[in-house]
Amino acid sequence: MEQKETCFAKRVRCIVKLGGAAITSKHKLETIDEENLKEVSSHLRQAFVPDSTSANVLGMDWSRRPGQSEAPSFVDDFSDQPAGDSESFIVVHGAGSFGHFQASMSGVHKGGLSRPLVKAGFVATRISVTSLNLEIVRALAREGIPSIGMSPFSCGWSTCQRNMTKADISMVIKAIDYGFIPVLHGDAVLDTLQECTILSGDVIIRHLAAELKPEFVVFLTDVLGVYDRPPAEPGAVLIQEIAVREDGSWSVVKPKLEDTSKPVEFTVAAHDTTGGMVTKITEAAMIAKLGIDVYITKAATEHSVKALSGILKGGIPDDWLGTAIRYMS
Amino acid sequence: MEQKETCFAKRVRCIVKLGGAAITSKHKLETIDEENLKEVSSHLRQAFVPDSTSANVLGMDWSRRPGQSEAPSFVDDFSDQPAGDSESFIVVHGAGSFGHFQASMSGVHKGGLSRPLVKAGFVATRISVTSLNLEIVRALAREGIPSIGMSPFSCGWSTCQRNMTKADISMVIKAIDYGFIPVLHGDAVLDTLQECTILSGDVIIRHLAAELKPEFVVFLTDVLGVYDRPPAEPGAVLIQEIAVREDGSWSVVKPKLEDTSKPVEFTVAAHDTTGGMVTKITEAAMIAKLGIDVYITKAATEHSVKALSGILKGGIPDDWLGTAIRYMS
Repeated sequence: MEQKETCFAKRVRCIVKLGGAAITSKHKLETIDEENLKEVSSHLRQAFVPDSTSANVLGMDWSRRPGQSEAPSFVDDFSDQPAGDSESFIVVHGAGSFGHFQASMSGVHKGGLSRPLVKAGFVATRISVTSLNLEIVRALAREGIPSIGMSPFSCGWSTCQRNMTKADISMVIKAIDYGFIPVLHGDAVLDTLQECTILSGDVIIRHLAAELKPEFVVFLTDVLGVYDRPPAEPGAVLIQEIAVREDGSWSVVKPKLEDTSKPVEFTVAAHDTTGGMVTKITEAAMIAKLGIDVYITKAATEHSVKALSGILKGGIPDDWLGTAIRYMS
Repeated sequence: MEQKETCFAKRVRCIVKLGGAAITSKHKLETIDEENLKEVSSHLRQAFVPDSTSANVLGMDWSRRPGQSEAPSFVDDFSDQPAGDSESFIVVHGAGSFGHFQASMSGVHKGGLSRPLVKAGFVATRISVTSLNLEIVRALAREGIPSIGMSPFSCGWSTCQRNMTKADISMVIKAIDYGFIPVLHGDAVLDTLQECTILSGDVIIRHLAAELKPEFVVFLTDVLGVYDRPPAEPGAVLIQEIAVREDGSWSVVKPKLEDTSKPVEFTVAAHDTTGGMVTKITEAAMIAKLGIDVYITKAATEHSVKALSGILKGGIPDDWLGTAIRYMS
């Protein structure tokens, strides 16, 4: 990994993954789940902007609203006093119903920019994911969160055979140091070996977590967490706590599963067909191995509010529904 | 100026400035001049994508259109043969009715991010200019131009007391080498001395021109070019050719102005109140001093088509309406 400037002043409290499925309508092309996105943005404000309430929010999206010709009037609302900064956090979001269609139709992940279809798909994918990024930045800004959209492609991040090789995070650090909240996303990027590929949000999170050592990482998804089998199956059990050991192996701590001979890998693999949970667990375990707690829970619920608040670091309450993945020395 | 990788394979044929006034409705907040933008995009395709016609365009914006639930069907249109690449060019656009309002209401250009109004204005300005950037990328992609939006902020560009100090263009070069057309824009950026400011499209162009040495630069604006007085005044004369000398001084070559004792600086300064032409001429003269022809002309006209085609390098025809600014050794 290349990196220019590693010194930074502000400790990052949290990296939040906004799962694509949690903020878009999965089966409706390029459609945002506005209600969920608004709720999640409000929860992020409550967790990371001290003393903020829905009544005193100073919106930072000053764009014209559809159907209006004037900008909102607001400037008088900003007192000229220095304000309490928000705590440092970073948002990384997936694509959901944005980008996936364009990428899969053209095979951007497989590379080969000399093929007109792949090149066009690369352009189309970036248009789709950056338009989602803009809407998420807007939603956060409306909650008074000083959000700044940053595309991995523009940041100069690239891969070699789909593994991240170049990821200069100095601009992310600088944005944080100046009090902004970077909002990154899964993106189409250049690949030194196969010319192009898709860099997923989960891989970005792992990289940022390793470099920035946040206090904890939260994955907000459209299910409560990781189950021992597909959640729709009768008797599916939510796994509440997974322990990761030094060697990278991991095991279920809570609840005690009946069939302990059944390897967790298998149960999670079964789940993968319905939600890509194997990748999520593998990425989460790699983060937890660094000593950083990872919480996977359902977006826009009381459980996500608890995860974002950081209180789970002191222990997982019995009534918290989600999956905590933690390092066990 | 810092720079990481200067070696590049592809010679850049042209850098195009899309003036904000040419592609937005200047007096209507955040409103794109769709007709002009479509026309300009078509002209760029004709100039830089060999053998392309409006009939054989392979659109690269695959997003859902408003009111439709399905993506356009198109994939079968892409033959799997390697396509003739477009010539290398770069688009830099201004803000027009996007961004200016947010920036001027909050004073982003004057700096001071500890003031809540400035910080909010920074976020609001970036939302506005990146939303315009996305629409321009879309318009170019619909014409089959492999356009890639790149924000100066995300590229890590910054200033010191409003002068560009850090502008790593390696990612711009890489995008070009892979056959993409970078689309950059005036942006809110970090400033090491005053914390933040506005980096204008014109300053970006000057920097890119100095680093990349394109064959020529075209400024597309909403007037035909530079006049000897405000164009609305009776008897205003369009200046067709300006010569720039080694020492940076410049003079009108064509037409012969009657009152030769009147310094050009004065006549251009008078014009400045109506369109920022002094900055434009100053920037253009600095580019021309590098031996790079600069053409200022009205967007979406036959004159802009001629400028983009590069035929003016051989000489300025009498019936071409615009201002050519060229180095005279």
